[in-house]
This record gives sequence, structure tokens and C-alpha cells, in this order.
Amino acid sequence: MFHRVLPGYSDSKSGQTGDYQMKIGYYSLDEYEKLVKSFHGSLAPGLLIGGFMVDLAQKNLPQGEFFDTICETSSCLPDAVQLLTPCSTGNGWMKVIDFGRFAISFYEKKTGEGIRVFLDLDKLKNCSEVYSWFMKLKPKREQDSNLLMNQIKEAGAEILSIRKIRIDPALFEKKKGGASAVCPVCKEAYPAGHGDKCRNCAGESPYLEVAEM
Amino acid sequence: MFHRVLPGYSDSKSGQTGDYQMKIGYYSLDEYEKLVKSFHGSLAPGLLIGGFMVDLAQKNLPQGEFFDTICETSSCLPDAVQLLTPCSTGNGWMKVIDFGRFAISFYEKKTGEGIRVFLDLDKLKNCSEVYSWFMKLKPKREQDSNLLMNQIKEAGAEILSIRKIRIDPALFEKKKGGASAVCPVCKEAYPAGHGDKCRNCAGESPYLEVAEM
Repeated sequence: MFHRVLPGYSDSKSGQTGDYQMKIGYYSLDEYEKLVKSFHGSLAPGLLIGGFMVDLAQKNLPQGEFFDTICETSSCLPDAVQLLTPCSTGNGWMKVIDFGRFAISFYEKKTGEGIRVFLDLDKLKNCSEVYSWFMKLKPKREQDSNLLMNQIKEAGAEILSIRKIRIDPALFEKKKGGASAVCPVCKEAYPAGHGDKCRNCAGESPYLEVAEM
Repeated sequence: MFHRVLPGYSDSKSGQTGDYQMKIGYYSLDEYEKLVKSFHGSLAPGLLIGGFMVDLAQKNLPQGEFFDTICETSSCLPDAVQLLTPCSTGNGWMKVIDFGRFAISFYEKKTGEGIRVFLDLDKLKNCSEVYSWFMKLKPKREQDSNLLMNQIKEAGAEILSIRKIRIDPALFEKKKGGASAVCPVCKEAYPAGHGDKCRNCAGESPYLEVAEM
């Protein structure tokens, strides 16, 4: 199972002696919690569920093979994927599509075949606090954060479902070999395929002002 | 200066005794290299330049304040940002816009004011291998990888330029309080604001097949 070999990372199993003996990927729950806090800023409920989602997926995929990933929401899930798999935003093996569905898919790049794991509403009947968090039924200040996290930990993979999926392998294929050009307006390099100017100078700029310092 | 407190991460300065005494953010070059390999898979040239870009930005921003980030390419740079700042894809503090320009901006969320750092073509005159890599003038197998990495390390921030920028603070503002709905087709939760069906079921699905396991 993939795990990040982080600088100075200790392989000791000391983290596994907490309240919960369960593991998320290579990590004990304690270790995963530390990793998440360091990377994401806080142990958001979505990161905890996301950890169980990646873990469930990995248990249902052949070991030693490599899978690209799709997150169907930009909230939380991408960070669970980035911490527990080799996929990241910058290496292109993780894509985010903004459907707002709480789901992650893993697929083999050449065949497009894989699995999809999602938080299953039908399985939340015994997790009232998870249900109300997930469906946004209460403002954050009214949430019982301890109850929410405990329900998630106790449920683990039980609130998740898994499906076989197939995508068109061409869908997220990396376009290789595109030439670079120099934008006549900003003088920066950009993909020539974008047109005769870079997208920024062609009208999509997010900048109201750019000035020398 | 922000640094990720990774599990078991050692604060020893042993990593600083390599060929290059320079630092990238909190890390020695050796430490940054290990971190990048663990997270991104390999020390791509873009991650090394990206490290110097984030470092230069941080040296030009007030300490102790928080800045959101924009990467103007999805290649490599997002991972430098995610490793060296508190911003990640999953926490929403890093946005990626697909301009294919090698640039990162840091901005204060409320005012939209900040700085933009970019790889400056005009400064690559003495870095022939960096220039030909950046402009994609040679196929990868013809690149001199050692020369490329050494030129990047030797140049450090000298091949970068920095500008003051201002964006419209509303541009990337997180829409809060959107209600969730249950999609009548897939029965999964999705943001009600997306319409009467989730985007997947409204025709944007990347899946050719979804099947029970």
C-alpha cells in the first residue's frame, strides 16, 4: 500500500495504541490525523471520511498497480487523495471535477476501468450528526463536533458504497508535445495551442492591476 | 515562515550540509528535494523552480499574515505551493487557473492585494538548458538533466521576476451556505444551486459505465 515517505518519518507503530486500532492506508488514525493537520490545516470531517474512502478503494484495487484519481468535489477530498496516494494536483494524476458529490474514483489510465467510492446517504440512518453535517442542515456553530467525529470514526467504511466504473481513457489524457510561444502582450511563455495571445492577455485575466515593485 | 510539521519530521539541520547552502522556505535544498520526491514522485525541474518562486514570494510578503494563492498552470507549481505554504487544493486556499503561464500569485483575501512571481524569459540568457526546457525546444530524451538542474540551482531566484498585483476579492470568494439537495437520478447529495439534478446526471458525467460490484 502506498505511503508517503516523508522526511524523518518514523515507521514506529506507536501511533496505533490510541482509542481506535483502525488504520487509514498505511497510517494509524493518530498518524493520519497529524498528517492531515499539517497538510490541510485541521482535521475536517471531510478529510476523515475521505481517508476511509481512499482506504476502502485501495483495499478493492489490485496491489502494485497504479491508478489515476478523480475527486467529484474540490472540498476536502483532494487532500485525502494527495496524502494517501501518489496522485497530486501538480503531477496531474488527480483531477477535480466540480460536481459537489462526495465521491472519489480510481481508474487505470489505459483502460479507463476502476472503482468509485462515495458517501452513501442510505447508510447514514444511524449517524444523525454525520447526516446533518453532510446535508448542511445546521449552521457550523450548532454542530456537535465531537459527536460528528466519533460517529465518523465508529462508522469507518460502513457509510460508504463502492461501484465499478469505466471512463473514456481519452477524457483526461495529457496532451503532450504542445509547443510554447511567447505572448506578444505580456512577453511570457504560454502554450501555443491557446491562440495568438495567452489566455490572460486574451481577456481572462484575474488581475485588476499588475505593477512594478 | 510556514513549514509543514510532518509526522516525525526532524528539525535537525543536517540537510544543510550539501553542495548548496541555499534554502527553500524553511527547508534546506536536500530536505526540500526529499519532500518533493515523496509528494510529487520526482524532483521535476518545475518543482525546483517552483520552490524558489514560493521562497521569493514569502521573502517579499509580510511575515505572519496569511495569503491565498493562484497557480497559473496546473503543472508542477501547485505542488510547490502545497508543500511550502498552508494552501492546498482541498482547503481551497490554492486556486489553479489553466493559463499555462509559469507564475504564482499570493493575495490577501479581503483586499485582493498581493504579489505575482514568474519565470522571466528575459533572465534566461545565461541558462540555455533552462530556456530550452521551458520553451520545449528539445524532446525530453535530448535534455541534459544534470545541467538543467544545476543551472536552476545556481540561478535560484535570479531567473524570476516579481510584480505587485491586485485581484477582485470577489473573484474566488467561497460561496457559503448553499443548501444540499438529493439528486432524483443518482440519489446522491449535491449542491442545490447546481440545478434540479446533479451535474453528473445533468449530462456532464465522465463515466461510461457505473455498475454494482
